[in-house]
Amino acid sequence: MTLTATLTRIDETLPEALDRLMGLLRIPSISTDPAHATDCDTAADWLVAELQSLGVTAEKRVTPGRPMVVGHAGGAGPHLLFYGHYDVQPVDPLDLWKTDPFAPEIQDTPNGKVIRARGASDDKGQLMTFVEACRAWKSVHGSLPCRMTFFFEGEEESGSPSLIPFMKENAAELSADLALICDTSMVAPGVPSIASQLRGMLKDEFTIKGPTIDLHSGHYGGPALNPLKEIARIVASFHDETGRVAVEGFYEGVHEVPEDLLRQWETCGFDEHEYLTSVGMTQPHGEQGYSTLVQQWARPTLEINGLWGGYTGAGTKTVIPSEAHCKLTCRLVGDMDPDALRAKIRRHVEERLSPDAKITWDQNLDGSPAAVMNTARPEFEAARQALSEEWGREAVFTGMGGSIPIAGYFKEILGLDAMLIGFANEDDAIHSPNEKYNVESFHKGIRSWARVLDALTK
Amino acid sequence: MTLTATLTRIDETLPEALDRLMGLLRIPSISTDPAHATDCDTAADWLVAELQSLGVTAEKRVTPGRPMVVGHAGGAGPHLLFYGHYDVQPVDPLDLWKTDPFAPEIQDTPNGKVIRARGASDDKGQLMTFVEACRAWKSVHGSLPCRMTFFFEGEEESGSPSLIPFMKENAAELSADLALICDTSMVAPGVPSIASQLRGMLKDEFTIKGPTIDLHSGHYGGPALNPLKEIARIVASFHDETGRVAVEGFYEGVHEVPEDLLRQWETCGFDEHEYLTSVGMTQPHGEQGYSTLVQQWARPTLEINGLWGGYTGAGTKTVIPSEAHCKLTCRLVGDMDPDALRAKIRRHVEERLSPDAKITWDQNLDGSPAAVMNTARPEFEAARQALSEEWGREAVFTGMGGSIPIAGYFKEILGLDAMLIGFANEDDAIHSPNEKYNVESFHKGIRSWARVLDALTK
Repeated sequence: MTLTATLTRIDETLPEALDRLMGLLRIPSISTDPAHATDCDTAADWLVAELQSLGVTAEKRVTPGRPMVVGHAGGAGPHLLFYGHYDVQPVDPLDLWKTDPFAPEIQDTPNGKVIRARGASDDKGQLMTFVEACRAWKSVHGSLPCRMTFFFEGEEESGSPSLIPFMKENAAELSADLALICDTSMVAPGVPSIASQLRGMLKDEFTIKGPTIDLHSGHYGGPALNPLKEIARIVASFHDETGRVAVEGFYEGVHEVPEDLLRQWETCGFDEHEYLTSVGMTQPHGEQGYSTLVQQWARPTLEINGLWGGYTGAGTKTVIPSEAHCKLTCRLVGDMDPDALRAKIRRHVEERLSPDAKITWDQNLDGSPAAVMNTARPEFEAARQALSEEWGREAVFTGMGGSIPIAGYFKEILGLDAMLIGFANEDDAIHSPNEKYNVESFHKGIRSWARVLDALTK
Repeated sequence: MTLTATLTRIDETLPEALDRLMGLLRIPSISTDPAHATDCDTAADWLVAELQSLGVTAEKRVTPGRPMVVGHAGGAGPHLLFYGHYDVQPVDPLDLWKTDPFAPEIQDTPNGKVIRARGASDDKGQLMTFVEACRAWKSVHGSLPCRMTFFFEGEEESGSPSLIPFMKENAAELSADLALICDTSMVAPGVPSIASQLRGMLKDEFTIKGPTIDLHSGHYGGPALNPLKEIARIVASFHDETGRVAVEGFYEGVHEVPEDLLRQWETCGFDEHEYLTSVGMTQPHGEQGYSTLVQQWARPTLEINGLWGGYTGAGTKTVIPSEAHCKLTCRLVGDMDPDALRAKIRRHVEERLSPDAKITWDQNLDGSPAAVMNTARPEFEAARQALSEEWGREAVFTGMGGSIPIAGYFKEILGLDAMLIGFANEDDAIHSPNEKYNVESFHKGIRSWARVLDALTK
């Protein structure tokens, strides 16, 4: 009964909720540009006031970079932490925008009404779906549904340099039972999605040196060790003819996708044809025996991102170069360990080097494991049912091919499981000119959170 | 008897011969630089006068570029054509020269006296060894040893754009029994060398296109066709594990080195250890079963000269690039046909492309076959014995890893066999600052030509 009242309240107050979002979107809180530091402060202040209007004890917290916003509200039941970020991407190239990126508008489009502005989708619009759900709940019930912590970051678009130190210093204050994050997309329009597994990443780079100097291919061609031939041979050895990575032990910690999840994915509305043909492909090129979606969400990769050496200008230069270079990244799944994997890859390369070839490795040892959500927790199934009811179709536990480090940090630093629910669409143009957020995403997003909060606090 | 007189005459007049060479070296006849066009004219005029002083009917001949010098002298016996070039390489970086490149000096060095100047070795000093041998011969005998044509080019260092048209237009005038060329090195100091095989060359370049745009490795890593992986696999397929080129039919037209030539090479004074270790190698890396020298002189190669794609800057970019590029050159030997070989290589690559991969090839179809001298002609053995007598050790029929197109042009356009005899040393620094020519090379070079002319006209 009271859920119905909350949903009705949301429907009735949508114009005011959109007005509030417009207010936040007007603040050009670009975190990477020092010229916008004050704007980030303004956005943080705006959110503090917004939370305070909900009875939340909120404050702006100083960091060496852009401020955090932290708020607490007491209550019975589970302790939920909600995370979002108020900073946005830069807007250039500005001449490709059809409207001022910081003068938000509601526009009619063939696919319905949209909110057009930088940050409309990523992440101000998504963040506000949760805040507005809390506002409607409070106006109907007189209080928030349970004990809550709000945690808004202002550096997500610029590498989050202050995030880990802040979480470590304030670990006790940020502890909760479950983290909720609204910064992800739906797998297809109208298909409610809970991102339950995100791939991790490992990066590495190496240089193979052959002759001590560049050689002339007439004078040395034949006897010379050519590092380009060497690096091609090694890069080619990374995969077998079925697309499987041939580095020994690479698949340690990789698990097959459970049958029930696979079935969800098969009917989740992912448009494989559009996904492939939109970039000029007719078939998936990863590991044979896995679908396009499984290759993207649930299988690890070893990708070459840069390969170079020798003469790259116009015409011919009969050079045997001294050096060749390779940049690679791996996407990790399951329990793959970035550090162990790095050692395996380096061993694979070094074992294949010819005599006289020397190798140097990059010393920047970044790596993060995959983030696999704890979907066995009852909150996940409860949220899934709540989303299914709102959207009129089965919600899906999706994967993501990319990495969202925040979920991993919650687990590592705070011991906190996270649930990622987002209402963005693939065509929202986040990070690009003319970013938008569907009014439907905003409206049904607020309603979705009301249903999820209801389900989690029953 | 008269050979002895000629040699004595050469010894006695060496100072005057050096003076004449200095005169030619003072002319900055850099062919590639239009600012030096007049200097090239001056050098051509200088040579015309020089030939005329030997009783040769000589003239400067206009071309669209730098002029040719052509001279004729009647006589009995074989009709010999002598080729050299009067143009020189640019001199930059000028600050690395210890003396003015066009103010030639005789300098004492630990390895004996040298002539220091741009062009001292390549090719003015070498060219003048022949002219001075003719001068001494004439002063002793009253005439040149046989019917002779002199043919001096002024664009050898800038790609010889006028050479082929000029040879075609004047084919009848340039016909002879044998061409002599003095523009090559001795295989080791003091080892007289006749370059009897020069490798040819083929160049090609291709681009492999995968996705229509650069992709994000989170979003597409796995399903995406990565052109860097594709190009590495194809480049790696060019060679087998023994260093042999694995392109079908690649070795068509390749012949094994005859046993007697192999024996000459084994004792020719080539310093394999120095050749390898000077560039950081401990062993040859070409085809197994062939010595370093055979790999360099007598075996064909397929070398990668440039390979590139993706992100090559600092740090990481998780990109799957749309394109990858490869530049390659082959060195050809024996009867390998550049055009047929190009087709084989292209077929090899195209047969290995993955579905969805598109390839484009460079349209610049340069290629030249190997030049294999007709050492069965009796003049070669006669010259070899003459050189052996002058230098006090067996002269060697050597190979060359690089290409000197002129020998091929003589054969193709004029049907003329060429004999390449040169007295340069590896340390002459041709094309580099502080170019030099050993006075011994000049002196014994003149004596060598006198002996060769004597042997060829007996």
